[in-house]
Amino acid sequence: MTAPGPGSVLVVSAHAADFVWRAGGALALYADRGAAVHVVCLSFGERGESQGLWKQEGMTLDGVKTARRAESTAAAQALGATVEFLDLGDYPLRVDAGAEDTLVAILRAHAPDVLLTHVPHDPYNTDHDLAHATTLRTRMVAQAHGHDRSTAPLGAPQVFQFEPHQPEVCGFVPDLLLDVSPVWERKLEAMRCMAGGQGHLVDYYTDLGVRRGVQARRNGAPAGVTHAEAFRRTYPSVGTELR
Amino acid sequence: MTAPGPGSVLVVSAHAADFVWRAGGALALYADRGAAVHVVCLSFGERGESQGLWKQEGMTLDGVKTARRAESTAAAQALGATVEFLDLGDYPLRVDAGAEDTLVAILRAHAPDVLLTHVPHDPYNTDHDLAHATTLRTRMVAQAHGHDRSTAPLGAPQVFQFEPHQPEVCGFVPDLLLDVSPVWERKLEAMRCMAGGQGHLVDYYTDLGVRRGVQARRNGAPAGVTHAEAFRRTYPSVGTELR
Amino acid sequence: MTAPGPGSVLVVSAHAADFVWRAGGALALYADRGAAVHVVCLSFGERGESQGLWKQEGMTLDGVKTARRAESTAAAQALGATVEFLDLGDYPLRVDAGAEDTLVAILRAHAPDVLLTHVPHDPYNTDHDLAHATTLRTRMVAQAHGHDRSTAPLGAPQVFQFEPHQPEVCGFVPDLLLDVSPVWERKLEAMRCMAGGQGHLVDYYTDLGVRRGVQARRNGAPAGVTHAEAFRRTYPSVGTELR
Amino acid sequence: MTAPGPGSVLVVSAHAADFVWRAGGALALYADRGAAVHVVCLSFGERGESQGLWKQEGMTLDGVKTARRAESTAAAQALGATVEFLDLGDYPLRVDAGAEDTLVAILRAHAPDVLLTHVPHDPYNTDHDLAHATTLRTRMVAQAHGHDRSTAPLGAPQVFQFEPHQPEVCGFVPDLLLDVSPVWERKLEAMRCMAGGQGHLVDYYTDLGVRRGVQARRNGAPAGVTHAEAFRRTYPSVGTELR
Amino acid sequence: MTAPGPGSVLVVSAHAADFVWRAGGALALYADRGAAVHVVCLSFGERGESQGLWKQEGMTLDGVKTARRAESTAAAQALGATVEFLDLGDYPLRVDAGAEDTLVAILRAHAPDVLLTHVPHDPYNTDHDLAHATTLRTRMVAQAHGHDRSTAPLGAPQVFQFEPHQPEVCGFVPDLLLDVSPVWERKLEAMRCMAGGQGHLVDYYTDLGVRRGVQARRNGAPAGVTHAEAFRRTYPSVGTELR
Amino acid sequence: MTAPGPGSVLVVSAHAADFVWRAGGALALYADRGAAVHVVCLSFGERGESQGLWKQEGMTLDGVKTARRAESTAAAQALGATVEFLDLGDYPLRVDAGAEDTLVAILRAHAPDVLLTHVPHDPYNTDHDLAHATTLRTRMVAQAHGHDRSTAPLGAPQVFQFEPHQPEVCGFVPDLLLDVSPVWERKLEAMRCMAGGQGHLVDYYTDLGVRRGVQARRNGAPAGVTHAEAFRRTYPSVGTELR
Repeated sequence: MTAPGPGSVLVVSAHAADFVWRAGGALALYADRGAAVHVVCLSFGERGESQGLWKQEGMTLDGVKTARRAESTAAAQALGATVEFLDLGDYPLRVDAGAEDTLVAILRAHAPDVLLTHVPHDPYNTDHDLAHATTLRTRMVAQAHGHDRSTAPLGAPQVFQFEPHQPEVCGFVPDLLLDVSPVWERKLEAMRCMAGGQGHLVDYYTDLGVRRGVQARRNGAPAGVTHAEAFRRTYPSVGTELR
Repeated sequence: MTAPGPGSVLVVSAHAADFVWRAGGALALYADRGAAVHVVCLSFGERGESQGLWKQEGMTLDGVKTARRAESTAAAQALGATVEFLDLGDYPLRVDAGAEDTLVAILRAHAPDVLLTHVPHDPYNTDHDLAHATTLRTRMVAQAHGHDRSTAPLGAPQVFQFEPHQPEVCGFVPDLLLDVSPVWERKLEAMRCMAGGQGHLVDYYTDLGVRRGVQARRNGAPAGVTHAEAFRRTYPSVGTELR
Repeated sequence: MTAPGPGSVLVVSAHAADFVWRAGGALALYADRGAAVHVVCLSFGERGESQGLWKQEGMTLDGVKTARRAESTAAAQALGATVEFLDLGDYPLRVDAGAEDTLVAILRAHAPDVLLTHVPHDPYNTDHDLAHATTLRTRMVAQAHGHDRSTAPLGAPQVFQFEPHQPEVCGFVPDLLLDVSPVWERKLEAMRCMAGGQGHLVDYYTDLGVRRGVQARRNGAPAGVTHAEAFRRTYPSVGTELR
Repeated sequence: MTAPGPGSVLVVSAHAADFVWRAGGALALYADRGAAVHVVCLSFGERGESQGLWKQEGMTLDGVKTARRAESTAAAQALGATVEFLDLGDYPLRVDAGAEDTLVAILRAHAPDVLLTHVPHDPYNTDHDLAHATTLRTRMVAQAHGHDRSTAPLGAPQVFQFEPHQPEVCGFVPDLLLDVSPVWERKLEAMRCMAGGQGHLVDYYTDLGVRRGVQARRNGAPAGVTHAEAFRRTYPSVGTELR
Repeated sequence: MTAPGPGSVLVVSAHAADFVWRAGGALALYADRGAAVHVVCLSFGERGESQGLWKQEGMTLDGVKTARRAESTAAAQALGATVEFLDLGDYPLRVDAGAEDTLVAILRAHAPDVLLTHVPHDPYNTDHDLAHATTLRTRMVAQAHGHDRSTAPLGAPQVFQFEPHQPEVCGFVPDLLLDVSPVWERKLEAMRCMAGGQGHLVDYYTDLGVRRGVQARRNGAPAGVTHAEAFRRTYPSVGTELR
Repeated sequence: MTAPGPGSVLVVSAHAADFVWRAGGALALYADRGAAVHVVCLSFGERGESQGLWKQEGMTLDGVKTARRAESTAAAQALGATVEFLDLGDYPLRVDAGAEDTLVAILRAHAPDVLLTHVPHDPYNTDHDLAHATTLRTRMVAQAHGHDRSTAPLGAPQVFQFEPHQPEVCGFVPDLLLDVSPVWERKLEAMRCMAGGQGHLVDYYTDLGVRRGVQARRNGAPAGVTHAEAFRRTYPSVGTELR
């Protein structure tokens, strides 16, 4: 808790690119510090978030998935993270009991100190809601002493919600502005990996990073902070310091 | 921000004893670490929170104030904190422009890295509401570059709200469970200083400390955490760590 | 608590007529049962709620006040209640320290088991907000053991918020639907006393009584319930029954 | 409504022990008054809430279920209640159409005047959320005139939410503090029946009972109230009294 | 956006009659203006909202459905709307993947500029919650560029939530009071079509229309507005005017 | 209501520059359409929002006020608006009865169809809270038939809250994204007038305008919308259209 910080960080991302735009800085920061950072993409975002790819002549669903897998894998590498894809479908995402079991096994295998995922309610995108609900449910199962006695129960990792596209309408009130200035170039590099599908978002999220940086300074961060990412905790933080 | 933590902590307490029951552990913790911890009591709680004293034969308002001042000063000493009393009256507390100026001057003089005060809405005790509102307003004035050019503007200290007596009805949702195990004995000693006025609360707040400690462990604190205090941040925290 | 119910009911009404439209049924019900029911009107509603009177040729402020006093007194009598007027002005209502002292003295003199007043936030009418805040503040002062040692401290009466004119926009969520069927005729009689100033509201509030009666039946009230009034508790109720 | 109170009380408990810790006092109180009190455990809590049992050498899932059934049955008897187990699994609980039909049939058979269950949102335990949602949904089906014409439609019983383990984080704001002082010994006896699985909670919930008792007195309960349980209503209460 | 307004309006109604009581005025208004107005009834409300029909001797489930279909079709015609029935069952409504696909196809075929449906949380009727969630989810799927490349993606129609039966308890805060005075007679005619199943509601909803009309005038509508319906937007409105 | 829109727009701005950053586009838009647009600055923001001016050698409070008056007047002119300054002081703003009377007279003189002001709760700046509360209170007084019988009562203008600097922390959820693309150059010109005091904000608010424009398009605005401003309504809108 007061140790050098989490050694294992795990992200549950509804679509293949969400983790890049919304939490890429946090991931790069922890990878830089030597943490094991792992991303689970529940889907490729193949139907709903690959508009650029679908404009290409003769594109197929498999073609989109392949392209998205390549882009996201490159982005994860740029951030220093590993990534896997559960291919559960998007728009709508569907999570059955088998998919839950898979995710529970992943949680136990990685034993994350910190989880990151979407907000609980996004009226623009109910896949995000389901990713959030699935994260809480599988975290609970992974904690159960009576589940799969051959692996060790999960502890009580905090679940950080990352920023949705339209934060106010989703009821997102940030309670942590994370300084990602030292790794901004790496987030930029990762964002550029997504250019085939959603390239127009690079500028948008760069501006957002600057804006959150300004707000961080207004909330007491040092003058050198240039870029930040916003998060919301699901549970109270615990610790030995007033901060 | 990632430094050893605040060097100056300031509490705005509506009544003379609030800081003891609700934040005594936090204060002792920081005093122990060498921080300058200062308490501003807006009133003595002479009318509304001195039931035990009023039961004494021939007690007067001045007598109650004197007793409360002595108790609170002893409690502050036990915690390692300094204390001052603005004597603004209680039940109801009244804060005029002069009192605000005094508090602004105190804020600039102490330059706290962290502020602690009451929740914004306590339907049982509107003095608490006024203490909260006064803290935000005077913090804002103390930050203004055009206010009193002879002293330095305040930075942007976080305002931690401490736990009210009936948390749920006050809308208090803790987002920090602070481990105060190492200093619990000192909080206990401070609470016992208040025995003349509100002695029956010592057991109540001891139980609460244990209960918050259990919750801290359920939220990921180490097994050695036995006592905690609950707080709520007014602003997002800023930092370089996901916690 | 499980006794035959409150023996003393007190209403804090921002304007002279509020208590009639919004809580007349409750007052008549308790008066019928032998409770002492008392109404404190902070103002006559002379500027803002006497549109009908102002249409009369040559009407003056004093004339409006006189007419409103007469109407409200007649309405209170119809309900079986006593009434007094503090004449603090309306639109805007202003409550100074002296007015607070007066209200504290009234609270101690009547020692109500139940208080009724406005909601905390009415964006259409900030006089209502002030009446609510004043009720909570003076209730707190009246409870203080160190306030005016010649009179007895108030207990902990529940504060019921009555229904505002546009409930949803005021954030009013009723948690008690009170069956006022047995006294509806008396409320109707009281409402008709206000005809000089706001006569058009009689039908409106009659319809509302029916609507709340329908909702009461949908929430489990017996089929014989024809009219109800809606309230919201400020504090948890206490008792020996699950209801 | 103003009659001697509910004659039939039914609890929907996600796991085998929840009803004991969270509502045992309420159940004993009504059993004492001659009400028919029935508990439906959706699962045994076999995986997630039987840590003590799993520590026993060679324990199996069936062994845990058997032990939990025995403990919960003994606890229900201590409270004066009957109990049945639907064995739907825990961590995660899963409720299919067949399970819903079973619960609807139980609701119609018992015709409860009052229902008790979990809060709608518990981020620590999504089984609780599902138990809440299932209770509202099956209550609705049981009310439908066109469902199973051979049994009688359910009325409109209130649904009381009992207190979760971390109330503030679950958004639990109590609006009823129920005096369970007369039956505290029976709740204690029931809690002790769970010692095999969760024995460490007896002290925790005893302290909570005392704390809620203190709060009840602060909200107007008589001085003799020593222990209380906290609940939240899902619907407005209806009645003929302001309380 | 600033054009003469929507040319295509689509309603997702959980039960066969909901669209009449809650949004009949809005539908008639747009039909009058030449818009294509289409209603999708997810169920007939055959079990839960046909109490009057079930009282008839020898009534069967098919008989109720037939009667409800006839009533709702007549009501839709009276409003100038077309209607279709998905017959997914009620109390509880169940929506599987196939039903979602059907609704997505309907959304793409009608390409509505405006959607209307239920509120997200109705503790009295979870079918309403499911209709809301289904509307958001299928709207999202219909927007996806990678879904069914043979039909055109949906734009970003606003989703208006219509008024539930007990608005405050459902957390319904209206942000649009729609003047339906010019078409009130048509809504009345449509409501009377439902007389076989829920005839007692005609007066209730007539009173509600008047009440919402009064509120509209209080919020600035012209004096000629006699009847209104209340709605809540799910997303921010966009436009070129401050209104 | 469905007419060409408001003919009179009035802004209540806590400090001299707030109206420029937060609502400059809206003001220019309406000025362009021929509406009378008037700004009331309660203070000059002389102490708290003139950091750049205070850095100038030998600056005095009067000097800051003079400079701010000049800047704001130029900005208002650039937007096509008139402006007046009540000089009530800032950090903290103080509004006494006389100031309220002045504002009521202004409201009656301008008879605005639309009001714009700050959000109700801004924990960073309680001057904003007071400006909001003062707007609601003086609007209410200006509506009263019995207030100053020599001038005409105000109607029921909507109160639009403009966007605070840290929207989520202030609980600001926009419900109107106003297309200000046609007048963006004029807002830019107005913002540049403030360069002496807060010049660093021009880029920040330009980025924000773009970001809100993107969001407007995501909520259905035409592709040509490049810049938007976000607002929140205080009351339900009324009208004859679903938008």
